[in-house]
Amino acid sequence: MANSKWEYVKLFERPDQLLPNTWVVVRIDGRGFTKFANKYSWEKPNDRRALDLMNAAAKAVVTEMPDLVIAYGISDEYSFVFHKTCKLFERRESKLVTTIVSTFTSYYIYLWSQYFPDRPLSPPLPSFDGRAVCYPSVSNMRDYMSWRQADCHINNLYNTTFWCLILRGGMNSQEAERALAGTVSGDKNELLFTKFGINYNNEPEIYKKGSVIFRDYELAEPGSHNAAAEADSTAEPVQLSKSQSEREKKKRTKAKVVIEHLDIIKDDFWDRRPWILSNKPGKARAQTTRETSPCLASE
Amino acid sequence: MANSKWEYVKLFERPDQLLPNTWVVVRIDGRGFTKFANKYSWEKPNDRRALDLMNAAAKAVVTEMPDLVIAYGISDEYSFVFHKTCKLFERRESKLVTTIVSTFTSYYIYLWSQYFPDRPLSPPLPSFDGRAVCYPSVSNMRDYMSWRQADCHINNLYNTTFWCLILRGGMNSQEAERALAGTVSGDKNELLFTKFGINYNNEPEIYKKGSVIFRDYELAEPGSHNAAAEADSTAEPVQLSKSQSEREKKKRTKAKVVIEHLDIIKDDFWDRRPWILSNKPGKARAQTTRETSPCLASE
Amino acid sequence: MANSKWEYVKLFERPDQLLPNTWVVVRIDGRGFTKFANKYSWEKPNDRRALDLMNAAAKAVVTEMPDLVIAYGISDEYSFVFHKTCKLFERRESKLVTTIVSTFTSYYIYLWSQYFPDRPLSPPLPSFDGRAVCYPSVSNMRDYMSWRQADCHINNLYNTTFWCLILRGGMNSQEAERALAGTVSGDKNELLFTKFGINYNNEPEIYKKGSVIFRDYELAEPGSHNAAAEADSTAEPVQLSKSQSEREKKKRTKAKVVIEHLDIIKDDFWDRRPWILSNKPGKARAQTTRETSPCLASE
Amino acid sequence: MANSKWEYVKLFERPDQLLPNTWVVVRIDGRGFTKFANKYSWEKPNDRRALDLMNAAAKAVVTEMPDLVIAYGISDEYSFVFHKTCKLFERRESKLVTTIVSTFTSYYIYLWSQYFPDRPLSPPLPSFDGRAVCYPSVSNMRDYMSWRQADCHINNLYNTTFWCLILRGGMNSQEAERALAGTVSGDKNELLFTKFGINYNNEPEIYKKGSVIFRDYELAEPGSHNAAAEADSTAEPVQLSKSQSEREKKKRTKAKVVIEHLDIIKDDFWDRRPWILSNKPGKARAQTTRETSPCLASE
Repeated sequence: MANSKWEYVKLFERPDQLLPNTWVVVRIDGRGFTKFANKYSWEKPNDRRALDLMNAAAKAVVTEMPDLVIAYGISDEYSFVFHKTCKLFERRESKLVTTIVSTFTSYYIYLWSQYFPDRPLSPPLPSFDGRAVCYPSVSNMRDYMSWRQADCHINNLYNTTFWCLILRGGMNSQEAERALAGTVSGDKNELLFTKFGINYNNEPEIYKKGSVIFRDYELAEPGSHNAAAEADSTAEPVQLSKSQSEREKKKRTKAKVVIEHLDIIKDDFWDRRPWILSNKPGKARAQTTRETSPCLASE
Repeated sequence: MANSKWEYVKLFERPDQLLPNTWVVVRIDGRGFTKFANKYSWEKPNDRRALDLMNAAAKAVVTEMPDLVIAYGISDEYSFVFHKTCKLFERRESKLVTTIVSTFTSYYIYLWSQYFPDRPLSPPLPSFDGRAVCYPSVSNMRDYMSWRQADCHINNLYNTTFWCLILRGGMNSQEAERALAGTVSGDKNELLFTKFGINYNNEPEIYKKGSVIFRDYELAEPGSHNAAAEADSTAEPVQLSKSQSEREKKKRTKAKVVIEHLDIIKDDFWDRRPWILSNKPGKARAQTTRETSPCLASE
Repeated sequence: MANSKWEYVKLFERPDQLLPNTWVVVRIDGRGFTKFANKYSWEKPNDRRALDLMNAAAKAVVTEMPDLVIAYGISDEYSFVFHKTCKLFERRESKLVTTIVSTFTSYYIYLWSQYFPDRPLSPPLPSFDGRAVCYPSVSNMRDYMSWRQADCHINNLYNTTFWCLILRGGMNSQEAERALAGTVSGDKNELLFTKFGINYNNEPEIYKKGSVIFRDYELAEPGSHNAAAEADSTAEPVQLSKSQSEREKKKRTKAKVVIEHLDIIKDDFWDRRPWILSNKPGKARAQTTRETSPCLASE
Repeated sequence: MANSKWEYVKLFERPDQLLPNTWVVVRIDGRGFTKFANKYSWEKPNDRRALDLMNAAAKAVVTEMPDLVIAYGISDEYSFVFHKTCKLFERRESKLVTTIVSTFTSYYIYLWSQYFPDRPLSPPLPSFDGRAVCYPSVSNMRDYMSWRQADCHINNLYNTTFWCLILRGGMNSQEAERALAGTVSGDKNELLFTKFGINYNNEPEIYKKGSVIFRDYELAEPGSHNAAAEADSTAEPVQLSKSQSEREKKKRTKAKVVIEHLDIIKDDFWDRRPWILSNKPGKARAQTTRETSPCLASE
């Protein structure tokens, strides 16, 4: 039973390498999470444990894949960004996307009981889909991130008001929807404040800003780098000596992966963390006492 | 903070719908499973519990996705086949592949403790990559399946002999490799029999044939159908009335999903199960007593 | 000035091989031919010389590319079909499409003066765009051809009536459009007959049916072949011995390429010409006296 | 004969829009031009009329397609560059590539008799294939252009020496090949000078540098622009008002398209012509008396 007569079927595989010198964003989304949230009685508008679980799974992904320079998550979605010089898996789209989706799913299920000790999982289980998009310039990639964070803000303001009207205002969902139809941000802020005494600005940053995950080094002085222009003008291929490459890998592996809730729309975030755009590891921060294990819930 | 100025980034998404009227095979593979197998001390050459766990996860995938007509697994890989008329997710490649990879991973982690109650998982966790390939004709798709099953046979005969030489023959791996270099199937069968008294034909079917998963109906009389020719000649789009389509879906959902260890290279398997190629549900089998839940290990 | 430092730019080329075992249809279309037709005062609704020029250029393409099994043209468009086993240029899409577009354009310009001796070309010159589509089964490919021929019929009946109303009925184009709005085929036939004494059935076949180009061999007895089923069930790769392959190539090169105006929707056309679907050259016809040069206008 | 039952075949068309915000280079190549050159007895190592014909056809393409910012040609190949903001044909690859290939072919055949009045074309006719490649950054695109021009230099120095050895040195081609094996540029320069009294630097620029085609405006002061950095940092979509867009189009149409033989590897070429990278039309040059028609051979 030689299998050579059937091996021709390998010819039907299509190559799927992503265009070199572009930023690769892999976004994953929870499948049917509205229903899933109901099944496990998640709190509205935000369930802190659910977000912490998403963040812990995403942190594990970033920790295991040093080619990722940043990740950003809101609700049941997470975006992972490979640096434009990334050569992992020869940039094969399927490998990059499925490795992220599978690793994320794996940690999500594994860590579930830490975050929901009182609500054991049962089939049908949660799962995630994902896809990759290439962005040619730093501006395009940052605009993608800004788009997601603006979405986070818009959705969270809406949801916070919507659920206040229901949970504290006694409306049903149709009534709440009607009450919010046509309102702008100012209206919702006003409504929250006058009706429920809530100052939206004081809401937790994790809900308003979403979560950013990256390797942490010493912050740069503002204005001391122009990592964006440098990144854009760098052409392929970046030629590192083997030893230099090893040194950088080591630094990356040792760097602390952190979960923060910062503004990533303004320049400041990027200017002070030039390593994200340059992919050159920064200077290690003085040691702190926070945990670094990707698998502990103690962020 | 309107996000309209950043929404243009959606234009960078590339459409990825797979060619209509082709069989879509999604194959997933364990990432770094050689190392993983050592970590959990799996038995050589085959660890029955590891295979049963793969099968249970794959059965859950097939059960949750009725568009899958058959799946075939060996070692740490599994191939899932969507019927050529499948329109799930508008045939978008990323959605199809990542949904399978994520669902599979989810059940794999979830069910782990049932199959390895004595060996709790710890990071780094197992994960799987995957990709899709389109096959235009029934012959191409069946040749793909034959290729995998022939590989199963070739690898298992080799591995069985190799590990006999080591575990019972006292060789180290270099010696065993040398002993097998240049041998053909007959030589290995002979060696197993004369040296170790093993008749390879009596080895468990799950090791020799791999595992086939499909919905089970009453077998057809051999020669009563020509599902392959019918499937090939059917052009897009299959026009089912809504009620007909609902009826078929219901039948599929009710059908028992089974795991078998059969020859899928010869015609007989396909001739007697015309529903796999036609995608028309067969006649329900008389009820048996076996469990049908995808999440129990009792196959 | 070694160019090695720049050669990395080759890595940005994306592979574009078309899925094996599928019928590849390359359709080309005249760019801006409405305007072009006016510039050279082509007759309405059909300019015979313009169609003959299209046919002559297409015949040259089919003659120079023996991997093409059939071509079909109407108005300023032409569809060329590569057999599903075709391996020309490793099935690279760009090569296949641009070779056809360029060869066609080349002959179109070169032959122009034979068909329009009184109207010399001047810039801007005519040009054509093109694209490839893969069809997995014989049914899909034949349905594509039927679609084009049905379009030919529908357009020609409409245009014939439309231009009768204008040229002989004295209407302007708005009036003619209004007169035809909402009419079905029967209405137009009736109108042509009662108003202008034209029996549409007696119109020239080239206008009603379009033009089919193929290699011509002795017709098969109806029912003697089932080339479609055979073609569909044949899997990759077809293994011809080198000498057999050479023999077939020679037969193809010697075969007469003909331009006909036949019904290609019904089975009869395909049943009697099994070589189109099988790609196995038929038996040479008894010699006739017609010209076979691709570059003479004497069809 | 409604064609609705066949229209589903349109679903098999695959979208092929190129990634936004990338430079699109379309390169075309003569098919079988070694044989073709022999058929028309072109001069070795360079036939000036053949190059002039290539340039005239390419100039017509650039003139007819204002989205092209630059083109570069050597031997029987030509590269055409669309600005990264180009939205022509919605950036559909097939349309962009085939339109260039067809327009180029059209002019090549049409203008042939002007350049080779004594050698009328006969079948098989010349034709060209082509493909598109996307480059994300200015550096990548300029490196592509540098690669082609370095190739031009390397090939021309080799060919000039090779044909001197044959035509004036009395060698056959094997002997000439052997004589040049392992030589570097310096060796060939030396050989040309000492053996044949040829100073390679004095060879015609068109042979040494190839041909560059672009719209010509008043040169900028060196150092006054940083068009590359600007181009790289500009994200999609460039929002021009309709009237502004019209004004720019008009300027482009009026600009003179020139064929030059300049160094495009060094920065100077690009620094002084910032309109190529910025796609903002420059200031019209004071009128000169040279011809601007794309179809005259008088460059």
